Amino acid sequence: MGLIAIDISVSVDGYVAGPNASHDEPLGKGGERLHEWIFGLDAWRARHGLEGGERSVDNNVVEEALARWGAVVMGRKMWSGGSGPWGDDPNAGGWWGDDPPFRVPVFVLTHHAREPEVKASTPIEFVTEGIEVALGRARAAAGSRDVLVAGGASVAQQALATGLADELHLHVAPVLLGGGVPLFPGDGLPPARLEHGGVIESPAVTHVRYRVVR
Amino acid sequence: MGLIAIDISVSVDGYVAGPNASHDEPLGKGGERLHEWIFGLDAWRARHGLEGGERSVDNNVVEEALARWGAVVMGRKMWSGGSGPWGDDPNAGGWWGDDPPFRVPVFVLTHHAREPEVKASTPIEFVTEGIEVALGRARAAAGSRDVLVAGGASVAQQALATGLADELHLHVAPVLLGGGVPLFPGDGLPPARLEHGGVIESPAVTHVRYRVVR
Repeated sequence: MGLIAIDISVSVDGYVAGPNASHDEPLGKGGERLHEWIFGLDAWRARHGLEGGERSVDNNVVEEALARWGAVVMGRKMWSGGSGPWGDDPNAGGWWGDDPPFRVPVFVLTHHAREPEVKASTPIEFVTEGIEVALGRARAAAGSRDVLVAGGASVAQQALATGLADELHLHVAPVLLGGGVPLFPGDGLPPARLEHGGVIESPAVTHVRYRVVR
Repeated sequence: MGLIAIDISVSVDGYVAGPNASHDEPLGKGGERLHEWIFGLDAWRARHGLEGGERSVDNNVVEEALARWGAVVMGRKMWSGGSGPWGDDPNAGGWWGDDPPFRVPVFVLTHHAREPEVKASTPIEFVTEGIEVALGRARAAAGSRDVLVAGGASVAQQALATGLADELHLHVAPVLLGGGVPLFPGDGLPPARLEHGGVIESPAVTHVRYRVVR
C-alpha cells in the first residue's frame, strides 16, 4: 500500500493563496508566486502537451512525484477553479482544462453530489461523504502507489486531522504574502511530531519533506 | 556595515511558541521542541560554560551565527523570561541567568524605561523609543558585524515592517504545534519578495535563509 502525502505549495509565511481572491486573481494577491516554480518545468509542461521545459532539480522533484501518485484528492474549489464566487458553481471544472495533468483518478471532496466523469486520461469522482471516504477510495484506486492530497488548505487540514496522512511535502516559495489562506490556521489541528524527510533546494523553491509520527 | 538578520526558531506550522504559555511551560505547550535542536550543540553549551557538545552541521550554523553577531535585539518578554504574566515584571531577567550567552550588546525593546546594565560579558540596554531606534543603536554597536533580531514574534514582525531587515534566518523544527504564537500572523505585515539564501538540514532542524528583496 502506498503512502498518503499532502503535497502543496506554500509561502514562507504559510499561505497557500494570497489575500483578496477575485476572478482576475483566483489565487489572491501574489498567489501566483506560489506556483511560478512549476510552470516552466519539463515534467509539468509535458503534462500540458508542451515541450522544451527546464530539467532542473525542481523538475526531478515533480517527475518523482508524478511517478509516485496513483490517485489525487483535492477540494472542490481547487478542482473547479480558485476560491472566488464563480467557484461555487459545482459544475465548473475549467481550471484544469479538457486534459487535466493528473492522469490518475482524482477524488474531489465536495458537498455537491455529481456523477463521475472522465476527462482525457483523468477519471474524476466527486465524494460527498467526507475526507476519510475520499482517502479510502483514493487508496483503493492508487494500489501500491501513493495518494497525493493536493489541497486546498481545508482538504490538507482535514487529511492531517484524520491522522491518515503519512507525509507532508511542502514546496516553499520564497515570498511573504502577508495574508491570504493559511495552510495551518492554528484553530484545532492536532499537534504532531514530524520526522525530517529531506530538503531539495533551488533559487525558485525549497522542497521540504516530513513524515508524520503517529 | 553589517546586515540586520531576523534569526528565529519556528515550527513547521509557523509558531515561535506553543499555545497556553504558563509559568511551568513558558514557551507554551510543546514550545520547547522549537529549541531542542540547539541545547546539545558544542557552540551553545560553550556559551553556558559546558563542555562536550555535539559538533554537527547544526553546530556549524550556530558557530557561524555567533561569529557574525555584533549586537542582538529582542523583545522584553524574551529577555525577561517567557510570555506568561510573570514576564510583566520589567525588572525580571532571569531567563538568561547571570552570564547571558550573547556576549555582545543586547537591546531590549520595551515600554518600561530602565537603566542599562552589564551582566558578565553582555551589556544590556532597554529601548523605549521603538524598533527603528533599537535597530539603529544595535547597528551602531555592531559596527561591521551583523545585528541579530532574535524575537519574539512581535519584534521580528516589527523589524520586517520597518523594511530594515536584510535577511530572514529560520530554524524550522520538525513539529506541528497546532497553535500558539505565530511568527507571521497575517494581519498587516507587508508582502515581500525573498531571495533563497540556502538551506542546511539535519534530522533535528532545517535552517533556511532568505534575503529580503527591497
